[in-house]
Amino acid sequence: MTRRYDTVTLLSDLGVVDETVGVLHAVLRDRAPHARVVDLTHGIAPHDVRAGALALARAVAYLPSGVVVAAVDAAVNRPIAVEVAGGEGVLLGPDNGLLASAVAMAGGGERAVVLDREQYHLPRPAAALVVRDVLVSVAAHLCNGVPLAELGRGVDVDSLLPGVVPLPREADGGALAAEVLWVDAHGACQLNLGADDLAPWGLEGAKVQIAFGDANDPQVRVAERAGTAAQLAPGAIGLVVDHTGMLAVVLDHRSAAGELGLGVGDQVTVAPLAEGHGAPPVAVTLRR
Amino acid sequence: MTRRYDTVTLLSDLGVVDETVGVLHAVLRDRAPHARVVDLTHGIAPHDVRAGALALARAVAYLPSGVVVAAVDAAVNRPIAVEVAGGEGVLLGPDNGLLASAVAMAGGGERAVVLDREQYHLPRPAAALVVRDVLVSVAAHLCNGVPLAELGRGVDVDSLLPGVVPLPREADGGALAAEVLWVDAHGACQLNLGADDLAPWGLEGAKVQIAFGDANDPQVRVAERAGTAAQLAPGAIGLVVDHTGMLAVVLDHRSAAGELGLGVGDQVTVAPLAEGHGAPPVAVTLRR
Amino acid sequence: MTRRYDTVTLLSDLGVVDETVGVLHAVLRDRAPHARVVDLTHGIAPHDVRAGALALARAVAYLPSGVVVAAVDAAVNRPIAVEVAGGEGVLLGPDNGLLASAVAMAGGGERAVVLDREQYHLPRPAAALVVRDVLVSVAAHLCNGVPLAELGRGVDVDSLLPGVVPLPREADGGALAAEVLWVDAHGACQLNLGADDLAPWGLEGAKVQIAFGDANDPQVRVAERAGTAAQLAPGAIGLVVDHTGMLAVVLDHRSAAGELGLGVGDQVTVAPLAEGHGAPPVAVTLRR
Repeated sequence: MTRRYDTVTLLSDLGVVDETVGVLHAVLRDRAPHARVVDLTHGIAPHDVRAGALALARAVAYLPSGVVVAAVDAAVNRPIAVEVAGGEGVLLGPDNGLLASAVAMAGGGERAVVLDREQYHLPRPAAALVVRDVLVSVAAHLCNGVPLAELGRGVDVDSLLPGVVPLPREADGGALAAEVLWVDAHGACQLNLGADDLAPWGLEGAKVQIAFGDANDPQVRVAERAGTAAQLAPGAIGLVVDHTGMLAVVLDHRSAAGELGLGVGDQVTVAPLAEGHGAPPVAVTLRR
Repeated sequence: MTRRYDTVTLLSDLGVVDETVGVLHAVLRDRAPHARVVDLTHGIAPHDVRAGALALARAVAYLPSGVVVAAVDAAVNRPIAVEVAGGEGVLLGPDNGLLASAVAMAGGGERAVVLDREQYHLPRPAAALVVRDVLVSVAAHLCNGVPLAELGRGVDVDSLLPGVVPLPREADGGALAAEVLWVDAHGACQLNLGADDLAPWGLEGAKVQIAFGDANDPQVRVAERAGTAAQLAPGAIGLVVDHTGMLAVVLDHRSAAGELGLGVGDQVTVAPLAEGHGAPPVAVTLRR
Repeated sequence: MTRRYDTVTLLSDLGVVDETVGVLHAVLRDRAPHARVVDLTHGIAPHDVRAGALALARAVAYLPSGVVVAAVDAAVNRPIAVEVAGGEGVLLGPDNGLLASAVAMAGGGERAVVLDREQYHLPRPAAALVVRDVLVSVAAHLCNGVPLAELGRGVDVDSLLPGVVPLPREADGGALAAEVLWVDAHGACQLNLGADDLAPWGLEGAKVQIAFGDANDPQVRVAERAGTAAQLAPGAIGLVVDHTGMLAVVLDHRSAAGELGLGVGDQVTVAPLAEGHGAPPVAVTLRR
């Protein structure tokens, strides 16, 4: 059965410094005037498919019924549409793994098509801008009730490129080698560790050792498992379950990324606190 | 009496580089689909309650009837809702002074509640993100007609934390020690001085002396009271009444903040022009 | 005949770090609640009329029927409204050339007025913010059905300030001295050259020489005419027709602006490839 959608959610690496994202809004306003547009973010770093996939996956549980257009590195791979949740949602994007985690979190893809029917694309003045000429144009048609199956050749959902989610590795001495997945606006450094991954080492109030920086001469610090950053002593490093359910390295009212020199992709090794040696429980010297 | 609202205005320190603000839009679209969302700004510096309070106060006279959600440093203080203007508006935010100036400019708070009824909050996957799980969720319920009194325990409006508005101080020789409250997109440096504060020293065309920078070795310059920056000679420093009614230090077509090295929180001392000594009326050397 | 509009498209140099653009949305929501707002961009550099005019011209073919408000350096010149396309669109902005290219691309201005009727402006607390107090206020009145002719004194469209579009110049040896008009989010450097300008030197696969940087000691490189950046060898410089129909200097998956040190306004001289001397066809050394 066909349905009309009335919300289009956008995510891209296009920034908002120029008019490109504005043109996407203009096309949607022009071709599906009843639809409302939600900008998830356009601040994904250029070509950073993993960062886009993670942002989409973190958000997907909150998205309204409708069409999602995600475009990171969209020029290279074939454009696809994946239907989820009994048709509650359709995700459009390149077949490069960008949609994979979000689709999985929405219960898995039920149908998919390759967007190869040019009659549903915009006429191109020159080179294609896939997000504008294919993805957003098709989103407007979906909002107007064109059935998914009309928009392109069906493909097996299992044939789509999977996402790459970095898993923590076991390291020496029972440690876990984790990685910074995301630095939020306040400098919290989300790791690829869930709340349960550290459960063997104690819950709130427990202390662990974290190591990061130069692999040959890492910085070693003590971090405290805390409920929120606000519970930490000034300068103390916390490991908290963040608002998406993952563990994050935080400081109270300061940027952990800034103070500790951490960025996306950096390795952070978490280990039980060594007794009698290792990290002294000193506070970080805070830059002013 | 209960009313439904159809506009939610947002202000935060969350930035738009990641999906967090997009999720706020998604929640509102999902739970109060008739409401429209106005982003006042998400560019407040992290945790800068004063900057957020000033931005909200500058904007409040222009806001449409509806719900305002303001979130700066929202994790720490209890979340509150304050009704103003006979129910024309409800402001939601942390009880940390963020709302105070805007509430005062809207005629004062008439009723207030602490948002402690969890049935109106979002279910939390893990730690709370107050703006998402409490403030925006409650905003959606207000838009859907839930009465304010249902949303939490009533509190005395006078018990809410007041805002901190820095007042200019009198300095030596009849001078006024003012402070930069805001630097706008074009580099105008708004001071905590109203148009009348300098009236004793003359109106448009009058010249005053301004001093700023290193307290032990301040830069001293002549500034001209002008109607608009465009009336200034190239390189001349102006003191104009800006479009919010406050005095601002400006240059014509150049950034006063950039050229003079001024930023938010910096002190600027304004004094009558000393005769025979003090600041020579030279133009600033403009950096290219 | 009068018509009501239901979309207002905005472009400015106001940024989104503070609440100024949010106030524009608030005014429109308050005074023309049925209208929807499209933000084309607010990231134009302060006072950069040319950049604003180019962004508007690139977008105009995609804009929905309605009102466009463009504000770059809006305080200086008189505010005007220009009707295009039989009333499908009205463009509002300063009479400083900002609207000129877009008006031309929309088929030319058919009627114009100077926005001098203060009854259609906002009351001003102090100094005017033209975009808020005049342009957006008038846009709301247009959305509400006020006829253009009511909003101000008619002026001859031909008397409006034209835009300045930099044309490529012929240089020594049959070369073309072009200029970077725009750097997009992925670092593509759009030149003021159309696809046809290089046709005499061959189409896709042909190689040309480009020179840029210090005029006395320019960098000289080989660039390949390609269909898309993805067709380029790693490190190879491409000249592609971009998604707006102009030629752009690109690298595959890297920022040409960043790698080559190019920015808006920089000169790039394009010449036929010299045989036997000149640029060796080496790849650029890519910065990591």
